[in-house]
This record gives sequence, C-alpha cells and structure tokens, in this order.
Amino acid sequence: MLKKYITMSIFRPAAILCLGLLPFCSFSQSKPGRAPNVIIIFADDLGYGDLSCYGSPTIHTTYLDKMASEGMRFTQFYVGTSICTPSRAALLTGRLPIRSGMNSVDGANVLYPGTDGGLPESEITIAEALKTKSYQTGLIGKWHLGDQPKYMPNNNGFDYYFGLPYSNDMGRATNKNYPPLPVYRNGKVLETDPDLSLLTQRYTEEAVNFIKRNKDKPFFLYYASNSPHTPLFASAAFKGKSKRGIYGDVVEELDWSVGKVLETLKALKIDQNTLVIFTSDNGPWLIKDENGGSAGPLSGGKGSPYEGGYRVPAIAWWPGTIKPGQVVYNVVRTVDLFPTIIKMANVNLPKDRVIDGADIYPILTSYQSTNNGVVCYFTRDKLCAVRKGQWKALFRSDEVYGKKPVVEHNPPLLYNVETDPAEKYDVSKQFPNIVEELKREYSKQLASVVSVPAQLKPYNKGKE
Amino acid sequence: MLKKYITMSIFRPAAILCLGLLPFCSFSQSKPGRAPNVIIIFADDLGYGDLSCYGSPTIHTTYLDKMASEGMRFTQFYVGTSICTPSRAALLTGRLPIRSGMNSVDGANVLYPGTDGGLPESEITIAEALKTKSYQTGLIGKWHLGDQPKYMPNNNGFDYYFGLPYSNDMGRATNKNYPPLPVYRNGKVLETDPDLSLLTQRYTEEAVNFIKRNKDKPFFLYYASNSPHTPLFASAAFKGKSKRGIYGDVVEELDWSVGKVLETLKALKIDQNTLVIFTSDNGPWLIKDENGGSAGPLSGGKGSPYEGGYRVPAIAWWPGTIKPGQVVYNVVRTVDLFPTIIKMANVNLPKDRVIDGADIYPILTSYQSTNNGVVCYFTRDKLCAVRKGQWKALFRSDEVYGKKPVVEHNPPLLYNVETDPAEKYDVSKQFPNIVEELKREYSKQLASVVSVPAQLKPYNKGKE
Repeated sequence: MLKKYITMSIFRPAAILCLGLLPFCSFSQSKPGRAPNVIIIFADDLGYGDLSCYGSPTIHTTYLDKMASEGMRFTQFYVGTSICTPSRAALLTGRLPIRSGMNSVDGANVLYPGTDGGLPESEITIAEALKTKSYQTGLIGKWHLGDQPKYMPNNNGFDYYFGLPYSNDMGRATNKNYPPLPVYRNGKVLETDPDLSLLTQRYTEEAVNFIKRNKDKPFFLYYASNSPHTPLFASAAFKGKSKRGIYGDVVEELDWSVGKVLETLKALKIDQNTLVIFTSDNGPWLIKDENGGSAGPLSGGKGSPYEGGYRVPAIAWWPGTIKPGQVVYNVVRTVDLFPTIIKMANVNLPKDRVIDGADIYPILTSYQSTNNGVVCYFTRDKLCAVRKGQWKALFRSDEVYGKKPVVEHNPPLLYNVETDPAEKYDVSKQFPNIVEELKREYSKQLASVVSVPAQLKPYNKGKE
Repeated sequence: MLKKYITMSIFRPAAILCLGLLPFCSFSQSKPGRAPNVIIIFADDLGYGDLSCYGSPTIHTTYLDKMASEGMRFTQFYVGTSICTPSRAALLTGRLPIRSGMNSVDGANVLYPGTDGGLPESEITIAEALKTKSYQTGLIGKWHLGDQPKYMPNNNGFDYYFGLPYSNDMGRATNKNYPPLPVYRNGKVLETDPDLSLLTQRYTEEAVNFIKRNKDKPFFLYYASNSPHTPLFASAAFKGKSKRGIYGDVVEELDWSVGKVLETLKALKIDQNTLVIFTSDNGPWLIKDENGGSAGPLSGGKGSPYEGGYRVPAIAWWPGTIKPGQVVYNVVRTVDLFPTIIKMANVNLPKDRVIDGADIYPILTSYQSTNNGVVCYFTRDKLCAVRKGQWKALFRSDEVYGKKPVVEHNPPLLYNVETDPAEKYDVSKQFPNIVEELKREYSKQLASVVSVPAQLKPYNKGKE
C-alpha cells in the first residue's frame, strides 16, 4: 500500500507541473509562518439541522458536539453551490463552480459514471497548491470531479486516493445501465459493488492510517465521506441505534468516524499542529423524505437556492490555536478554505484567475471577519440569488429537485436572513434601496463570470 | 420589603390550610432524602429553535448554552398545552389544564384582565406543596392564573410575589379597554404602565435578592419572565445588539438574566443544593412574524397541536448531582416537575386527584426514564393528538392562531416524531396497528377527564 502510494506520487502528471504550478512560480512569494497539517472532512447531503449541536432532536452526535465545544462552530457557513459535484469543485479550488464549467446544467446535476467531463486540468486544487510546499496529500472517500483517468484524484494533487469516484447511489442498484460501483485505490479499481455498510469503517481505517503514515510531515487529508447520501447503510454497531432511524444511524457512524480522526491526532500528539474542518457539500436531499436530512430552521434543501440548500453545519478544530467553544456568526464559505489553507502553507494566491474566497485565518484565530460576506447562489447556469450582509435578494426560485415550477422574480424578493433565516417574509417593498444595492451586486457578480465549456452532461445510457 | 414578605406569609389563606394541605395530611408519609432549593425559570413564547444550543443561527445565548454544557439539555420536552395560561396551570399543578377548567375555550385562550376565573382553590401548586415542608416560596414575574385577589400568587402558596399578573401585552397599548398594566408586589399594585424595557433588569434584581434573602433556608423560586412575548422591549445594554433583531435582543437579555441567577447561586455556594430548570410555556407565536420566535426543525407554534407548539427548550442544572453536558432524548413534560420536586422535598403525592406527571428524578440523576412517555395535546376542550413512544396520532388540526380551518382526521394521521419531527410524513397506512393502539390511548386519556367549570372566558369589554 505504501509502495503504491509512493509510486503514484512519482506518476503525478506533467499537467500539474506545467499548468498547475505556473501561477505559483510566477506570482508567489514565500512568507514566514507555520505550515500546519490540514484535514477537511466533507459529509455528503448532511443538513443544517442534523447534528445535536445544530439542534437535531434525535440524532446524537457525541463527537462532533465535542469537536464544536473544543473548537469553533459556524452558524452561517455556505457551500459553493447546493449540489454535490459543483460544491466539491468550489471547495477544492476556492472558485464558484461556474468559472470552471463545473456547474450543473439542465438535465445534468452532477458528473455521471463515464461522462467525459471533469474538473479542468487548468484548475488548481488545494492539494496541488500544497504539493508546491511538499505536503503529503490524500483523499479518502468520494471524489466526483470526473472519473476519466486524467480527472482522477491522483492527477489533481493527491498522492494517495482510496474511495469511490462518485456517489454511493451510482451503482447498478440505482440504474441498471450504470457500471458496477468501483472502489479505487489510487489509479486502480480495487473491487466493485462493495458492501456499503462497511464503507465508513473502511474510510475511517484508511484516514487513520494516512495520518499515522504522515505524522512527521506536513499533510493534507481530504476525507470526503459518502454519508449520509442515500442509499443509507450503517455497520452492525450502528444499525438501529439512533432514534432518527437509518438516517440517524448513518450520521452517528460518521460522527464516530470523526471522533476516531481527532482521537488519532491527539494520540500522535499532532493535534496542536492540525487544523480540522468538518462540513457538508450541500443541504439535505428532501425528496428522499425520511431518508433525507433536515435543514433545521432553514427552508429548502439540496438543489435549491434557499438557505437550507446552501447553509450547512461547519466546525473548525485546532487545539491551541482556535479557542474552545467559539460560535461564529459571520458569513464563511467553503470557497474561503482554498486561500486560507494555502496561505497558511506560505503558498501565495494564483493571480491569473478569480478566486472567490478570502483568507479566514483571522476568523479562526482572533474572530475577525475578513471576507466580503457575499454569497452567490448559482443554480444550473443561473445566478438565482445574492446575499450581502444580512440581506438576500432572490431573483429566481428553482429547486432543481422537487416539482415546483421555476419562477423568476423581477424585482427580486428580499429577505433579512439574519432575522428571518427561514425566508418567510419578503421585505422588498420596505427596503427599496437595499433591493437596488443587491441588484448592483448581482450584476457585478454575473459580469465576473466568463463562459467556459460545460463539463457536466446527461448520462448517455439513461439518466439517474 | 422583607416586612411585607413576612406579612404576606401570615395572610396565606385558610383555603390552603384546609383544601390544599388535606391531601398531604391524609396520605403523605415523610421519606428520607435531600430537600434542595428549586428554581424554575419559565420563558414566555420562546420557541424550540431560539437558543444557540438548540440551533438558532443568529441568537447568541451564552449563558443558557453554558447552563446546558454544565447540566442537562432535553430534546423532547413538552408543555402541558401550547397556550400560556393553561400551560402555567399544568406546570404548577402537574395536571393537564383541562382537569381544573384552565383549558382555553373558544373565544378565550387565556385569562384576560378582570376575568372572574382563575386556578381553582382546590388545585395544589408546587409552592403550596413545598410550604408543607417550610420552603420559602417566591414568584418573580408573570402569573396569569387569575387576577382576582383569591387567585393571586400569595393565595397559591407564594410567600413573595413581584411581577405582572398577566402578559406584557395586556395593557392599554394593546386594547384601550384594558386597565393600566399593573406591577404587583405581593397583594399590592406598586405602579402601573411600567417601562417594559426595564422589566428583565428588575426581575433579575428581584430574583437575585430573593435568593440572597433565602440562602440559608430551602426555597422555591418560580421566575416567570414576560420575555420574549410581544411587545418586545430590551434595555439599552441589549437593544440592537443581536443579529436576530429585537426578538434576539430580548432573548439575549433573558439569557443574561439566567446567567445572573446561576452566578448568584455559585457566589453564595448553594449551587450544589439547588436544582434549576429553564424552559418555556409554549412554542413561538408565529403570527407575530419576525417578532415571534422559531420552532427550529418543528412545525407549528403557539396554539397548535404540532410539535412546534408543545415541544420547547429545556435545561436542568444542578452541579454535583446532574452530570455536565448530558443530552436527554426521552420524553419529559412540564407536568413531571410537580411530582419530581415535591418528592425531592419529601412531600408525598396527593392521592385524591389525577396527577399526570411522573417523578423524573431518576432521569436527572441516572438517566433512567420513568414516565410513561405519553403526551396529550389538548387544544381548547378537544384532545387533538396523543403521543406514545415515538408515535403521534393527530386527530384534529386546530392551530387556534392563524387562519387555517379546523380539520378532523378520522382515522387519525400518524407521525413518527423521532424520525420525522417536522410531521411531514403521515404513515398511518403503513402502521395500522399503531393507529389502533393510539386510538385506544386517546380514548383512555379522554375518559380520565371529568367535566369541571370553565375558568377562561372572553374579555367582557372587548377581546384581545
């Protein structure tokens, strides 16, 4: 396993060296500072209301609650968009997915098995940026940014990869035309049609082993769980244990897994040099009924431009650097992680492209907000809403999943999402000046997007 | 002040001695055990989702979160009914309000100023029960169980009373026919039309002083805040400080007030002998829009038979007895507090009446559930729903406030409120046997109610 891992490092593609590193070579200047380990744990379809520390009445997330009490919990933390593939592109590149053609388009919400698209090679992932500073990089879990060889994790900055190339529902049980669901280790299919009830246990073991192997080097671990995306499977130790049914079982097993990761860091005495971020790719998949999660007090879910689609649980943990028990009410976004993490590693921001995120290190360490607090809600190729400060203007209702028709709002609806997080009360008539300001912000954000080839396409043998 | 307090003790009515104590004299046997101080802090219209530890994104309840982390937080805690006056009757008597005629009836949801009804003298309050063991008893805040002299707090077991006889909206600003809003100290009106923005500060000072005066005796303090019921007023130190607007300001001031109470107990070194319970009388008053609270993930609010009306935040705190950081997922109810508290004081349960609550001391101390987990959802004089275990059968939709028509469900709708706390998915067809079981429970509960005179009547000079 270690051998393959080294081998794969050697085979990291020329694309990274030429395209990927060019911006750093051209523009970066080394700055003094610490280069901590970084772990991002990314849940799949976990809703804002699905952890006990976010108000779930019946899911008991002991370890995530403890992580929050030892670290920092965010109440206004936003994903790049409310659907899986594009959200992952945003997380890893710090850019809105539409800038790289990774947005969903009509009929194609994610990358399907065998699609010839993927995260363009010109995009720089957090892993690629950190490789310029000799970080050891690993992805354990779900990729979903292209399953053709050139798009796979080992060609996107990851030295090591173990996991599924896409969602756990992209096997033959969901669509008989799909190929057998593969499990990869680096560039090779290790097996197909795995026992999904054992996946969290295997990911946990892989994550723990990755940390142990790399404890003496700076490392970046992207642990992208396939849970709690449907279909739902928990191992024997968790099945039937939660009051919330199988969905709760799966979340509680993920919670346990997070606990194992943190426990490993403590046992190895590297917790004080490791930033761990836990969050989710998008809100709950409401059309799955009781097998989908809860957005808690927020409206809408996965696919929608409402808060329940975009706002997710998020916890940051870094003993000795992040003070215990902080709650952060500022707007923070997954796109902020790219600049934050690479700067901590003394990698400068590439200057040949728009980076939508901002460095939030000052929030982590001294509670000082630095980003502009703007959230763009792109659905498909349309900018549906813009948030700035406490205000959100909704220009287009489009839930993607579900049966409600698409509705354009002109003038837009206006919500104060700090006093009205459930988006119940349109106050556009009371605040016409705010509406005008958000219309200007909308135009500005839209003008910054240039057209690029779409990477997502409908499944060619029958859609999901 | 102290003089008046003693005076009022002397004038405690014969009714308590004859009717109130009779059940104890007849049936009670002293048992060994500790007799701790008890404080109940009762918020007004605070919703399930309105504290940070229950998932509020923009209300920052520092002290209540700390209280939860030092104590026990309940996720399935139920009031006696989802409207103010009846809910308070249930809290203080351990009985469903319909048993004493304290239920809302059509056109009268609460007791209005000058109504000739009130909590019947035959009812036994927690305060009356504890007086049999020489507890010092005080009510700081809102009463709302009758404003005629015989119904007032000093005639219901409270040695000391400071506060409003009813809600903060029952002054002339709401209804020009109402008398000026009075502030009472014991039997006397101290002033009228008080500055409501100072009320929480005054209640806090009164509560702290009550504790200081009685620190060497066993005491019972019922601190019934008028917040965050509309109209909303915060003092200068809190106004404009919350991201949630004035509603958040008011909740954060209440939070501060709770902090002051706990701080006082610690400073006096009586925290280890004092059980403090924080909860709310009912869910959020949704028709007040942004001036009403949030039920978080639950549906409905004040007045409705949905979870958002009946399930409220609840925190128990008792250093040295309750282990820190516990989360309790069992069903617990305000009616359980009467038997729990009086048993801790070695007062036996009265045996001449139905007590709906059960002793939850084992939950507090060893996490063992003892009550039957049944919740009755009476709205007006109708039993609208029954919960047993994880199942809730809804026989009648009646939101009281709001404009939806009343709908009878025969057969009832069935929800699994542990997997589906938002009551979205009727599963009655999948579980016909459970429906039958709940129909039997419904009939059993209904059969236990005998008709008594209604105490609530419409306001005779114009309804609220």
